[in-house]
Amino acid sequence: MTHKKPLVGIVMGSASDLEVMRGAAEILDSLGIANEMKVASAHRTPELVHEYVTTAPQRGIEVLIGGAGGAAHLPGVMASLTTLPVIGVPVQSKALQGLDSLLSMVQMPSGIPVATVGIDGAKNAGLLAARILAIKYPELEKRLREYAEVMADNIRAIQLG
Amino acid sequence: MTHKKPLVGIVMGSASDLEVMRGAAEILDSLGIANEMKVASAHRTPELVHEYVTTAPQRGIEVLIGGAGGAAHLPGVMASLTTLPVIGVPVQSKALQGLDSLLSMVQMPSGIPVATVGIDGAKNAGLLAARILAIKYPELEKRLREYAEVMADNIRAIQLG
Amino acid sequence: MTHKKPLVGIVMGSASDLEVMRGAAEILDSLGIANEMKVASAHRTPELVHEYVTTAPQRGIEVLIGGAGGAAHLPGVMASLTTLPVIGVPVQSKALQGLDSLLSMVQMPSGIPVATVGIDGAKNAGLLAARILAIKYPELEKRLREYAEVMADNIRAIQLG
Amino acid sequence: MTHKKPLVGIVMGSASDLEVMRGAAEILDSLGIANEMKVASAHRTPELVHEYVTTAPQRGIEVLIGGAGGAAHLPGVMASLTTLPVIGVPVQSKALQGLDSLLSMVQMPSGIPVATVGIDGAKNAGLLAARILAIKYPELEKRLREYAEVMADNIRAIQLG
Amino acid sequence: MTHKKPLVGIVMGSASDLEVMRGAAEILDSLGIANEMKVASAHRTPELVHEYVTTAPQRGIEVLIGGAGGAAHLPGVMASLTTLPVIGVPVQSKALQGLDSLLSMVQMPSGIPVATVGIDGAKNAGLLAARILAIKYPELEKRLREYAEVMADNIRAIQLG
Amino acid sequence: MTHKKPLVGIVMGSASDLEVMRGAAEILDSLGIANEMKVASAHRTPELVHEYVTTAPQRGIEVLIGGAGGAAHLPGVMASLTTLPVIGVPVQSKALQGLDSLLSMVQMPSGIPVATVGIDGAKNAGLLAARILAIKYPELEKRLREYAEVMADNIRAIQLG
Amino acid sequence: MTHKKPLVGIVMGSASDLEVMRGAAEILDSLGIANEMKVASAHRTPELVHEYVTTAPQRGIEVLIGGAGGAAHLPGVMASLTTLPVIGVPVQSKALQGLDSLLSMVQMPSGIPVATVGIDGAKNAGLLAARILAIKYPELEKRLREYAEVMADNIRAIQLG
Amino acid sequence: MTHKKPLVGIVMGSASDLEVMRGAAEILDSLGIANEMKVASAHRTPELVHEYVTTAPQRGIEVLIGGAGGAAHLPGVMASLTTLPVIGVPVQSKALQGLDSLLSMVQMPSGIPVATVGIDGAKNAGLLAARILAIKYPELEKRLREYAEVMADNIRAIQLG
Repeated sequence: MTHKKPLVGIVMGSASDLEVMRGAAEILDSLGIANEMKVASAHRTPELVHEYVTTAPQRGIEVLIGGAGGAAHLPGVMASLTTLPVIGVPVQSKALQGLDSLLSMVQMPSGIPVATVGIDGAKNAGLLAARILAIKYPELEKRLREYAEVMADNIRAIQLG
Repeated sequence: MTHKKPLVGIVMGSASDLEVMRGAAEILDSLGIANEMKVASAHRTPELVHEYVTTAPQRGIEVLIGGAGGAAHLPGVMASLTTLPVIGVPVQSKALQGLDSLLSMVQMPSGIPVATVGIDGAKNAGLLAARILAIKYPELEKRLREYAEVMADNIRAIQLG
Repeated sequence: MTHKKPLVGIVMGSASDLEVMRGAAEILDSLGIANEMKVASAHRTPELVHEYVTTAPQRGIEVLIGGAGGAAHLPGVMASLTTLPVIGVPVQSKALQGLDSLLSMVQMPSGIPVATVGIDGAKNAGLLAARILAIKYPELEKRLREYAEVMADNIRAIQLG
Repeated sequence: MTHKKPLVGIVMGSASDLEVMRGAAEILDSLGIANEMKVASAHRTPELVHEYVTTAPQRGIEVLIGGAGGAAHLPGVMASLTTLPVIGVPVQSKALQGLDSLLSMVQMPSGIPVATVGIDGAKNAGLLAARILAIKYPELEKRLREYAEVMADNIRAIQLG
Repeated sequence: MTHKKPLVGIVMGSASDLEVMRGAAEILDSLGIANEMKVASAHRTPELVHEYVTTAPQRGIEVLIGGAGGAAHLPGVMASLTTLPVIGVPVQSKALQGLDSLLSMVQMPSGIPVATVGIDGAKNAGLLAARILAIKYPELEKRLREYAEVMADNIRAIQLG
Repeated sequence: MTHKKPLVGIVMGSASDLEVMRGAAEILDSLGIANEMKVASAHRTPELVHEYVTTAPQRGIEVLIGGAGGAAHLPGVMASLTTLPVIGVPVQSKALQGLDSLLSMVQMPSGIPVATVGIDGAKNAGLLAARILAIKYPELEKRLREYAEVMADNIRAIQLG
Repeated sequence: MTHKKPLVGIVMGSASDLEVMRGAAEILDSLGIANEMKVASAHRTPELVHEYVTTAPQRGIEVLIGGAGGAAHLPGVMASLTTLPVIGVPVQSKALQGLDSLLSMVQMPSGIPVATVGIDGAKNAGLLAARILAIKYPELEKRLREYAEVMADNIRAIQLG
Repeated sequence: MTHKKPLVGIVMGSASDLEVMRGAAEILDSLGIANEMKVASAHRTPELVHEYVTTAPQRGIEVLIGGAGGAAHLPGVMASLTTLPVIGVPVQSKALQGLDSLLSMVQMPSGIPVATVGIDGAKNAGLLAARILAIKYPELEKRLREYAEVMADNIRAIQLG
């Protein structure tokens, strides 16, 4: 797990998604999982998405995360180009608050799954990637348990009134 | 306009969309506009969609129609591969009645438009293709006016009670 | 394509829609497509809409764009008065965030299509008009390809981290 | 109130709306209020709607009811052509269960009101027309009270178990 | 029509609805229709609503307007206590943007109609009351036509660009 | 707890709600809690609701359940007439599947709570009434625990494959 | 009713829910009902929720209130661990305005009821707890009636215009 | 990969979910991935869920799938008890068509991710489990590619007209 090469590739459809999507990178960093971020639009740069996704395995990427808003096709397109697990982050849209992003991401046709997390749920996308990788890299499982314990301790420590 | 070669290409994501999508072919046939239908899934056969759309202009196609349900990416993917106008037909889905199909089709990002019609609105997609072609082929404009007149006459002829 | 006379007529139901709808004019301007903007309400000035739409062809207009919010009938009313293709822009409403605008625009009855784009999607409406006109005016197709390339280059140029 | 000439004009966008809309005629009949039904589509026969609505006052019509489904513009269009009160009945649509019909009917712009009742609420549209007419025709008020009493008696008479 | 006594009673469920609901009074004032406003909650002061509504006819009230948000029962409760026409104004709620207000107002059971206008549509409620009263008071019809003409003139006067 | 007199009053807005609402009576019967059912419409028989609810305490009723569909005001109206806890059951409506029933029941204004259960959740309404009564009648708590154990045992007993 | 020990336990899934949830404590305080607040997350500290809920009866707690947002499982989890009545407060979420919180709270499976109040309806949750306790503690019923009278008086005192 | 012991545990909240959820088992079987199915309700048998999930790793389970409808807490509860990746299948509900199931599953709080697939998307849940396991078991990757090729071939083989 002292990989230098990224294990997780985080793709977003627009630079404006960065504010949300860096939440995935931050939690992965804190768990010691190397990752990379990339802007590539399923609609405006389909070749870039194709190239990024199809070369990901040879670069050592094992889990992909895609974040997009509106007609949020990016993770679905990514999932259609690989057998790697693809996690989708519906980014909150201006008009419909992310309901469009969520539905266009999660309601994938049979055969091509996208592991969708909640609207703007980039941090959970990173944690899901970590859970997936922990099957293969046992030391990660320990870090996830520690993370959960700290999270629980923080809640237990809250004193009201 | 006595084209033998199709001017309109109708693509659907699954054979189960045929029942809805043939409405587009039928209205185009009745207006004397040659057309072709194709099953090609944006997710399960991205290369087939790519090949179909990118070769469409050289085969004489001038307008594309894409129909799909659920996370209905097909017309958006088509629009990202061509400068031809792409009309989208959201096909009614089982669970959410086509709201998912509609939102994932119409809420396209800036730069890549899809001309979306109503849920299961394949007939209107055909009529929209005809309106678009009528700019270039004036005889079509006359047929569209006749069509509208027949439609209006049918309504005027209804006698209640 | 060095038309002086507008090819595209952009109609909006209220002056308050101007902020959104000028996005259509701007992209058309940048593509060198002459266009005009007009405020005309389907409900408050039905005669004005009637006059504008029915005289549009003789003034050289080949594509119409209608933008409105709430019970957004404007593009549907326009489409009922012409055989020109009508593009609809659902303008985001105050209460329901444009869901009302979208549904009352896209769910047109069989026979009268409106080419609906996303909520506040005026720029995409302009691009869709350009794609439609490019069927007849081949030099437009080249400009659209260039536009797409610039758009893609801009995304490719983004460096994160 | 022994008018032979209709006081209420019931317009529907399609013959398929008759099954729902006759509920308005039936309650009006039972209250002794002459009425007429007409099929006229706001989109497919705008001139027919225009003619019907603008000549309604000279034919003695005092209240208008419009029923339609989907992008249900009919009552809004009617209201834009008259100062008579217009009652709207959103007819349940196939895909979105009438949510589209309701929103495109009720969310009218400032200046042009539509008195909207519930989805498929034709009977309530008839009762609302009667309440409106009862302001002018006092004998109607008595019939409405009797109707309410019968309705209440029927509920009071129910014995469970 | 030089009534001193109010013809229209405007009831709202909470003082916080006043900002929206005064739109009804203002348009009625401008049309010369005497009106009164009252805060009375269907849930917190049911007796006050009962008293206000059941005594309204003897005070000369001919049309009632009720505005409320959330589980917006007020106009429905009012309609259950009178045979006067009751107009409902769904006031935009904090959480669900008025969808709850709208549905709980418009979806009335058969027998008790509420003439619902759009979310926050108090001005349209006032205009609808005027249209209803104009059946009985012909001079109102003229004012409504003048109002519509001014409204149309204002739109026609807009010059873009 | 060997009460002969009903402790729970189940009110429904229409006889058509009986099929759903008897689920509340059945679970109460099975827990040995006397109850009674009544049809009384908030809109069509407001006096009947008033009388039923205001006399309930003197008849020994300690918990009220109200079930209704559409603009489902019944439990809210009941809650406005008593200090007894009122449980609301949103009955599934034809057009909007109970979303209207749910929102018009649960979104009560501050001051008048309705304890809302799920759409068509009459059985849970009965169980909630039992939980409430168990605070005062301790033997009920034991029956509720037994009920939960049987329910759990039934699930544990399921063998798949 | 001069209990020193809390009768009502208010649990919230996150410290960020405190701003909303203290509304429950405040109304309980004003009615003289001792209560306690606790942060415990159904997902991040399931053991803490388990411990809190299962020990509540022996600490004298008779009613539980749970508030959470998003996939708001907390009150459902609480209800699965006790036979005490559990009141749920859907806290408004960032993306979907509390529709997700509401649906994931109220749509409980048969057997495990949650008494759900409106979105951010903590005050009503407190009042509902008071109504429930008033069955057992008659002096509370008087305070609730006084509270209702003050509330009504405040509305009656409003003078408009 | 010739494991006899299940690698994937499929849990469902009710036996009525079996019809949908067996889709996950079938696709896993066809890919040669041992799996087991279990009925355990998050609300009615929380201890059973606790026991099943916390003992899953020692039984060799590496991926968990949870399917439920309505307030569909099951996969969220599972995810709170383990660091294994948990896939959620929102099962279509009767009233709200699965929108409630979807939102209460996907909108998990930060810290506890659920990999949600589409409504009734059990087959995609199985495929997602396979993609996850393929990171560790390379022979699975080949089977997934073969599966995708067969799927694509089936679509390519469709001949219309």
